Amino acid sequence: LGLPHGTSARLADQLLERGVGVVDLSASFRLDRELYEATYDEHPCPHHLSGAVYGLAELHREQLRGARLIAGPGCFPTGVTLAVAAAYRAGLASAAPLIADCKTGVTGAGVKASLGTHFCNVADRVMPYKVEGHRHAPEIARNLSDLAGRAVRVRFTPHLVPVRRGILSTCYVPLVDGVSRAALRDALSALVEGERFLELLPPGRQPDTARVAGTNRVELQVVHDPANGLAVMTSAIDNLCRGSSGGALQALNVALGLDEGAGLSQLTPTLP
Amino acid sequence: LGLPHGTSARLADQLLERGVGVVDLSASFRLDRELYEATYDEHPCPHHLSGAVYGLAELHREQLRGARLIAGPGCFPTGVTLAVAAAYRAGLASAAPLIADCKTGVTGAGVKASLGTHFCNVADRVMPYKVEGHRHAPEIARNLSDLAGRAVRVRFTPHLVPVRRGILSTCYVPLVDGVSRAALRDALSALVEGERFLELLPPGRQPDTARVAGTNRVELQVVHDPANGLAVMTSAIDNLCRGSSGGALQALNVALGLDEGAGLSQLTPTLP
Amino acid sequence: LGLPHGTSARLADQLLERGVGVVDLSASFRLDRELYEATYDEHPCPHHLSGAVYGLAELHREQLRGARLIAGPGCFPTGVTLAVAAAYRAGLASAAPLIADCKTGVTGAGVKASLGTHFCNVADRVMPYKVEGHRHAPEIARNLSDLAGRAVRVRFTPHLVPVRRGILSTCYVPLVDGVSRAALRDALSALVEGERFLELLPPGRQPDTARVAGTNRVELQVVHDPANGLAVMTSAIDNLCRGSSGGALQALNVALGLDEGAGLSQLTPTLP
Amino acid sequence: LGLPHGTSARLADQLLERGVGVVDLSASFRLDRELYEATYDEHPCPHHLSGAVYGLAELHREQLRGARLIAGPGCFPTGVTLAVAAAYRAGLASAAPLIADCKTGVTGAGVKASLGTHFCNVADRVMPYKVEGHRHAPEIARNLSDLAGRAVRVRFTPHLVPVRRGILSTCYVPLVDGVSRAALRDALSALVEGERFLELLPPGRQPDTARVAGTNRVELQVVHDPANGLAVMTSAIDNLCRGSSGGALQALNVALGLDEGAGLSQLTPTLP
Repeated sequence: LGLPHGTSARLADQLLERGVGVVDLSASFRLDRELYEATYDEHPCPHHLSGAVYGLAELHREQLRGARLIAGPGCFPTGVTLAVAAAYRAGLASAAPLIADCKTGVTGAGVKASLGTHFCNVADRVMPYKVEGHRHAPEIARNLSDLAGRAVRVRFTPHLVPVRRGILSTCYVPLVDGVSRAALRDALSALVEGERFLELLPPGRQPDTARVAGTNRVELQVVHDPANGLAVMTSAIDNLCRGSSGGALQALNVALGLDEGAGLSQLTPTLP
Repeated sequence: LGLPHGTSARLADQLLERGVGVVDLSASFRLDRELYEATYDEHPCPHHLSGAVYGLAELHREQLRGARLIAGPGCFPTGVTLAVAAAYRAGLASAAPLIADCKTGVTGAGVKASLGTHFCNVADRVMPYKVEGHRHAPEIARNLSDLAGRAVRVRFTPHLVPVRRGILSTCYVPLVDGVSRAALRDALSALVEGERFLELLPPGRQPDTARVAGTNRVELQVVHDPANGLAVMTSAIDNLCRGSSGGALQALNVALGLDEGAGLSQLTPTLP
Repeated sequence: LGLPHGTSARLADQLLERGVGVVDLSASFRLDRELYEATYDEHPCPHHLSGAVYGLAELHREQLRGARLIAGPGCFPTGVTLAVAAAYRAGLASAAPLIADCKTGVTGAGVKASLGTHFCNVADRVMPYKVEGHRHAPEIARNLSDLAGRAVRVRFTPHLVPVRRGILSTCYVPLVDGVSRAALRDALSALVEGERFLELLPPGRQPDTARVAGTNRVELQVVHDPANGLAVMTSAIDNLCRGSSGGALQALNVALGLDEGAGLSQLTPTLP
Repeated sequence: LGLPHGTSARLADQLLERGVGVVDLSASFRLDRELYEATYDEHPCPHHLSGAVYGLAELHREQLRGARLIAGPGCFPTGVTLAVAAAYRAGLASAAPLIADCKTGVTGAGVKASLGTHFCNVADRVMPYKVEGHRHAPEIARNLSDLAGRAVRVRFTPHLVPVRRGILSTCYVPLVDGVSRAALRDALSALVEGERFLELLPPGRQPDTARVAGTNRVELQVVHDPANGLAVMTSAIDNLCRGSSGGALQALNVALGLDEGAGLSQLTPTLP
């Protein structure tokens, strides 16, 4: 289902009752009831929430097998969660808030005509938006809290850049004392090991939205900043593929026991 | 002088000896000797450093009057320093590091032909660069340390976006306990009061590189994030004007006792 | 008046009856009744048409003095007419059709949100539109017929390019036998002589939309192609300034006996 | 071989002498000696010219079978020739010159760093270049002359637009008397019949560089303009694929007796 949240929840409810499995790309089934209703609005069928599986295959592969209701992650949560998952899972992040500064292409605003997506309001310009708060922040915080086993705070600021596809996430992870560069890199290596859609870049290179556009790939990098007690963890995804339909298809492949890259592996970017 | 650092220092030395005042746009005279030599290389005429005035008119107006050697600030230091000066000057920032995530247009890379500025390597793409370290970080840290009266740590990450002119700085300022939204806004109001080139935007609007392109204006905003103990302080400047020649001209006007906006006030953006 | 044609005609009618002069930017008063109704629709106040003056100052300066109703030319007709006026006025063009291939920025499509102006439908793409026929073609043909003293046929094809402001017109003028390069250049020199907003570029340079953006200037060039019996006459204008409000203001200045560049001469492009 | 003309000719000479077949993407083997030396410079191995086959598969399929030396067509000649081939082959075009107004993306200028490809010299701007003459004009004229069985004159004007990949060719074909819209469409239908890489668009749609980017496809359209005795024939290609390596691979497939789409059919555009 690729529908507005709420609408998709009502339709999913009917489908599930008839025994049809559902992959839903909206926010309807990503959060628990309390968080959903605090972030969005009243949930039309909360009894399905406990059975929904969050469709981030690299982090929820076991739960996805055989799943009947898959909640496709938000585009920003996909980029940020994968960028920093290694640090939170390995206990390298401190209790200070994560700062996630994201830059998104214009497809993130949807295909509908609006003043905000008019070429002349986007070209040759960069601007932050929803700085006061964006609905993806609670989803990111929930993901990281699950990984860390404690409540994680997140400061998330999206920016619109004159690009069509892609999200670049620049994440500033506060480190616990004594974390080394090697520990960061090891944690990322463990995350990407055996994962066909995750790539840890060699030192000195940074993720690039153009290289992943049109694919399900995620580029990852970490730079240790010990003077500031931080790790700068970055990721690039294609919001239209990995950040929505591609990630959902990957999760569905896992759920159905198919090859995880079925329908995804042949995608190649058309970089100039 | 608009020359590479070092080259401009040697020329400035000769000019000053002949009694000619100098406005230098390079890094040659922005830092003290120790910081300069740690960041760049050996200084060819360090005896001039103590007499140089940092050309950020809003913060150094008194020292600029009558100055004979003005060091034009770097483009990123201009944007970041003005974005957060109010908080550091008013003692609202804690000892945790400042995180400055900057997005710059391609003119920031200079007019020379290079692979990095080839249209096909820039268009439809966003990427971080020099994440391991950028020479402007020590300049920013020095500026803020001077304002705060203590050593300030800075994490600075520049990004290249497919825009011609402009720097958007998104700064995450760690707050001391109990700072209110009103205190932040008051500090910014005090900074911009009487300043013709600084504008604090009304709540809900964010700085926009297109609105300041072609002008010496600086747009400023703050969003209070008490849940994370942060203020998100943002600025937009035109790197080619306010971030270099325009800011230098403003400083020169102060030095010469001219109207501070002479040659600058008539500039207007050509927004579509 | 900056309103849709028809609407503006009805309002102009009321204003003129009350003795208020009108500068109208719509198509309402650009054509005679027959051509208007063939191109647009029934005219609401055709009795005003004979008194309207076409607001292309360089070609209608005498008629504009004291005019009470000025019809601002269309954006494409401004660019094409000024590009080729010299050849048609001097009798250098043959009876074969003029071919005008125009490339326009997205502001030409207006400020309203539409799928056609969505960033993702415009960026990184070039396409022709309204190839079957565009309403500006009869206006161009009328202008050139007036200059030539005979019916001139025009093939006009607009293209949308991922640019904000500007129209580049590439015009292929069929030449009568024996026209020399010097004759073409002389005709253009005569056109631009004494004109502050027209500039004939030196040989070898071509008009550039970026250099005229934000100004009322028109850049012109001609390349003689004797092997094909053609002159390639090119122009660049800013559709938002010279192609609409700027050209109208210039015409109004003439009508009111003011300096022709009042309110226009200080405009400067903000080229990177 | 993807080398500068001349250089590739000398290398091809050596390879051919050793029995190695050659597909050459330069201009070295596209023209006969006289035309080559008039357009480029002295040919280093003119004895190979008579054996070279021009690699436009749709027009030279029979000659390509078994060819040992294939000359890959220029990017503009590919787009223009395919746009108008149907009219010239069917005898619908008159003796008046063809006017080909082309708009190319920046990859057409090569990957080397140059001022002309600097992002800030390309973005938000459109400009003609080499209006006085471009080396591809004789190649286009030769192609059409071969199709028409008489000398065809061509006026060719390229323009640079802020796009990465793609060439849009807008061709104004002078028609012999009495050519109907149906005759034009029939000629195009005959051209595309059975061709997997040519697509005649339905009436009312125009070729789009974004839809063909990353593929070997060619989109074609014709609009009849009887009032001006013209057909407006348009094409869109990806200059990096169909206009160079892709077209060459297609020709090589024919030469080797392979499936003509081998290595090409799976390409898909990554349109937002």
